[in-house]
Amino acid sequence: MPIVKFLPVAVSAEVPVGTLVIDAALLAGIGIDLPCGGKGTCGKCLVQISEGTVENNSPLTLTAEEKAAGFVYACQSAIKEETTIIIPARDAERTDLQNDDSIDLISDNLPPLSRLSPATKQITLQIPPPATEDGLADFDRVSRKLKAELGIDTWQVPLSSLRKMADSLRHDEGRITLTLFSAADKTSLVDFSSGHTPLPHLGIAVDLGTTTISVQLIDLTQGKILSTKNGYNDQIHCGLDIISRINYACTPERLEDLRTKAMHALNRLIGEAVRELKISADQICCAHISGNTVMTHLLLGLNPEYIRLAPYTPTVLQVSPVAAGAVGLAIHPEAMITFSPCAGSYVGGDITAGILCTDLIRNKDDICLFIDIGTNGEMVIGNNEFLISCACSAGPAFEGGTIECGMRATNGAINSVIIDCDTGEASYTTIGNEKPQGICGSGMIDLIAGLFLQGWLDAAGKLNRAKSCPSIRIQGRRAYYIVAEGTATRSGKPIVISENDIDNLMRAKAAIHAAAAVLLKQVGLGFADLAKFYVAGSFGRFLNLQNAIIIGLLPDLPVEKFHYLGNTSLLGSYLLLLSEEYRNMQTSLTKRMTYIDLSNFPDFMHEYTAALFLPHTELHHFPRVMDLLQSK
Amino acid sequence: MPIVKFLPVAVSAEVPVGTLVIDAALLAGIGIDLPCGGKGTCGKCLVQISEGTVENNSPLTLTAEEKAAGFVYACQSAIKEETTIIIPARDAERTDLQNDDSIDLISDNLPPLSRLSPATKQITLQIPPPATEDGLADFDRVSRKLKAELGIDTWQVPLSSLRKMADSLRHDEGRITLTLFSAADKTSLVDFSSGHTPLPHLGIAVDLGTTTISVQLIDLTQGKILSTKNGYNDQIHCGLDIISRINYACTPERLEDLRTKAMHALNRLIGEAVRELKISADQICCAHISGNTVMTHLLLGLNPEYIRLAPYTPTVLQVSPVAAGAVGLAIHPEAMITFSPCAGSYVGGDITAGILCTDLIRNKDDICLFIDIGTNGEMVIGNNEFLISCACSAGPAFEGGTIECGMRATNGAINSVIIDCDTGEASYTTIGNEKPQGICGSGMIDLIAGLFLQGWLDAAGKLNRAKSCPSIRIQGRRAYYIVAEGTATRSGKPIVISENDIDNLMRAKAAIHAAAAVLLKQVGLGFADLAKFYVAGSFGRFLNLQNAIIIGLLPDLPVEKFHYLGNTSLLGSYLLLLSEEYRNMQTSLTKRMTYIDLSNFPDFMHEYTAALFLPHTELHHFPRVMDLLQSK
Repeated sequence: MPIVKFLPVAVSAEVPVGTLVIDAALLAGIGIDLPCGGKGTCGKCLVQISEGTVENNSPLTLTAEEKAAGFVYACQSAIKEETTIIIPARDAERTDLQNDDSIDLISDNLPPLSRLSPATKQITLQIPPPATEDGLADFDRVSRKLKAELGIDTWQVPLSSLRKMADSLRHDEGRITLTLFSAADKTSLVDFSSGHTPLPHLGIAVDLGTTTISVQLIDLTQGKILSTKNGYNDQIHCGLDIISRINYACTPERLEDLRTKAMHALNRLIGEAVRELKISADQICCAHISGNTVMTHLLLGLNPEYIRLAPYTPTVLQVSPVAAGAVGLAIHPEAMITFSPCAGSYVGGDITAGILCTDLIRNKDDICLFIDIGTNGEMVIGNNEFLISCACSAGPAFEGGTIECGMRATNGAINSVIIDCDTGEASYTTIGNEKPQGICGSGMIDLIAGLFLQGWLDAAGKLNRAKSCPSIRIQGRRAYYIVAEGTATRSGKPIVISENDIDNLMRAKAAIHAAAAVLLKQVGLGFADLAKFYVAGSFGRFLNLQNAIIIGLLPDLPVEKFHYLGNTSLLGSYLLLLSEEYRNMQTSLTKRMTYIDLSNFPDFMHEYTAALFLPHTELHHFPRVMDLLQSK
Repeated sequence: MPIVKFLPVAVSAEVPVGTLVIDAALLAGIGIDLPCGGKGTCGKCLVQISEGTVENNSPLTLTAEEKAAGFVYACQSAIKEETTIIIPARDAERTDLQNDDSIDLISDNLPPLSRLSPATKQITLQIPPPATEDGLADFDRVSRKLKAELGIDTWQVPLSSLRKMADSLRHDEGRITLTLFSAADKTSLVDFSSGHTPLPHLGIAVDLGTTTISVQLIDLTQGKILSTKNGYNDQIHCGLDIISRINYACTPERLEDLRTKAMHALNRLIGEAVRELKISADQICCAHISGNTVMTHLLLGLNPEYIRLAPYTPTVLQVSPVAAGAVGLAIHPEAMITFSPCAGSYVGGDITAGILCTDLIRNKDDICLFIDIGTNGEMVIGNNEFLISCACSAGPAFEGGTIECGMRATNGAINSVIIDCDTGEASYTTIGNEKPQGICGSGMIDLIAGLFLQGWLDAAGKLNRAKSCPSIRIQGRRAYYIVAEGTATRSGKPIVISENDIDNLMRAKAAIHAAAAVLLKQVGLGFADLAKFYVAGSFGRFLNLQNAIIIGLLPDLPVEKFHYLGNTSLLGSYLLLLSEEYRNMQTSLTKRMTYIDLSNFPDFMHEYTAALFLPHTELHHFPRVMDLLQSK
């Protein structure tokens, strides 16, 4: 088998002829980013062949210079002989995400402290000493006590606890502390220890996102959030959106690569929280994870392929609790991990957790809409009698993906922009008041809205080449807008938005608007019938509502109808970890939630095309935006 | 920490001051046999200190020469400085045990083929393809089919099967084969595969003995025994009987050593069977293990200490099914291992499995006695209305343990002996007609009975120094009997029985007889009231019944009342693996079995002392033996 050498790191791998360069790199332990998941569409995996030749199926978009220099797509070229390959230097790594403890808790949705009912409980018991005549084993005496005190008939005891039982029962006069997990009438033991000393009783709530993962360490006895940690999902190197991830996961080795990447990212965040609080990870005795259907599949190593192919069928929607040790989650090995149930292939556990934070599950009279804009866009309308949900592949544009200078809403991101009505130049703020590094979703929305309102951008998303503006540059048929000159930025490179970027954003907002319109039509309603419009997702944190309406991302409703909720997947996980009432609510709402697949609705294409303008082709739906445009 | 060097193998270990030589050897990877478990009573762990000194607590029984040469007990000496220790060469290893496929099956006890009901079943189903509109995941479609066809409501699916599900369902038109395990109304999946091709459906039945382990590979669809493998329990190096094992298991490291030794021995036998049949161990999808309470604890790594200390309480009597992968049993990792329930600390799963092979569980009118003579002696009397059981620590004498030239009933063992009535010399047969290597239980019984009957041994077990016999040698106050001269044996050393050996055997037979007598007294009966007297255990295979009666091991009953059953622990495991009826019978018989602890019965000491003669102090209980003695 030929040996493939990678430079500049100088590592090698021996691989069969026909192996893709990207897989050879994976074997050699080198990560090459594949934003499109390896479909040859994004061009971000360019590598340079230094010695030898490869079976080159790179697309024709490569320039003559690139071809001459030996550049190929790593995801589209296969090894055929001994080869040396240069991996080009990468841009600086991603900046850290903010670890923000101040999650937007909707306090009236939280269960009162007196009613905290975590699935994992600590119980103290005093077990009588062994007697000569009763013939009861240690296990039998504990079981009898459990039955007498808590009415528990049968319980599962892992070997690790059984091994500690004999010694633990013979200390401290038989006083013991049990950590028990209960679900669906079954009880299992997580841990067993001697004495009645109160131990920290900890759990973690997890939002398993396509781009980011958030972990909250919770004190289960008080419902107190001890630490919140946010970080990237390491899988982002293997595709930016879920379809790219599914494409990447096309071999068992790559699926395993994705599984370990997500688990490592999760464990890294747990490690950070644990170190910060100076506790042992073994003290965390339960976890609740809410993630979309594909992320849940990937974390468990389940093949996601058929979620991408009609009729879009996942392996499982409701994952049964699994022991942490069985999947490598770095908490107590016998801790049970529970998962939010998915409602459909593209409406996952993050959504069934998310709407727990809204009036959709409480209010019978009013109909509300919930939308979570993350890497994907998912939405639900309904009330406590009916729920109907769908997803649209908005793509990661609002999170900075597929945008040349895009980035997430973190330190250094341009998060708000004002366009000077005379010069057309941008003034902006950045998160953390740092030198700008890129532009995040809210900044892009402000920018597009401002340029549109002031006449530097037309309804079709083309920059106005006729109206003079020092920030607009023309290169042949292409035009772009300079948000910040290189002199002002951290990298020294200007931060720009091209017409191509604007196009990507308009397609994303059109998909979201169209999906919501179709969903409403399904129940014979329009946007005006909604009592509340909930926006979830970290993207919404810095959102200027009016600008989101101007570009037609959000419908033209009175501002007071909008409610920004933050990371509802994480908040939902927190509620589910602590409250049986919420667990029961989630089970029942998932059962009654109808999931519709937009690809089966010809209406969707119609609505989508109509929404590919600023704010929309049917301007009368946006009366306030019309007023604004006319007042200019 | 001082470094300890072991010769002649030249390995070292660095250990804290105070570490026992035996534990330092374990750390260095050297096994030293501890027949007494490390209590300093057997003297088999003698090692020679070559450099340095040790904290020497060796008993005073060492000779002056041994002391001068630096010999100490490895189990009674602790490291205090850098030391070099010589491990004396061992005798040749133990011979292999026989792998005998012809287990004594009591055919009328076997369930008829039409009623085979193994706990693990193979089911074939055809799952409809995913539909666009039903919103069912793969798991849901399989669950619905299972519910419709088999009435199974909930089932546990391990991740390994869930990971295969999506691809398997999309081959062969949705035809799949499931391997399901059911117990106590719970169903779990062992394996999942595509297609209806009948796979080998295999299980293993295990007798986990103190000295030997037996494994039977079973075809579960036909109830056919494919292979039987017998081997030593590797734990014999750490104590010959269960009390020695418990003594050895006094630290977590040693307990783990015992656990892995048993598991390795078991896996070695499985490996032999699997290689012989050219199958993959992964095809074995269930296991049933019957072992005594201590062996079951040690296999699972449960601390056995409190079984030895009053009130003799085990951690658990009925072990719940565990997955093979969780304990390292080398079969399908998701295969469930079931265990025979123990009735008490010293009447284990081998006995509750064993009496399934007898009339004790069927016959209401007759009362029978079942005795299993292995390393321990356990017995049960009763019928299908009551059962009462006890154990006596007979010790391993009848299995060759604690006897100078003793060995198990395997090739090369002297298994029957006739004493010439004129010269007192022995003629003998050996198993496999090989040159003798030692003498097994049945040979020793023949020998003692013959010498006693012909007048070369008195009722107290002393050799007759007055009656001339070329085979009796006197050394000071000690006398011994030469069974085979060195010229005839494989090792060239004579095979002898000393008065000390005879004493050990008499104590063993007295314990067994006394236990049976006390048990009968408990229910107001005598030996004559028994309809059947079952003898189980490999020891009984070559037993001469009349000689066993002559020495008073068995009561003086008509020969037709005795039934030899062979390895009932293994046969019981076989029945339990294949038949739900037997599983239910075992559960109910264990519930109604009364376990008595002989140490609470002063009568036992009385009976034991009375039985320390040949055949017994109360000769009138042995009328046939009296006749024989008088006819001489």
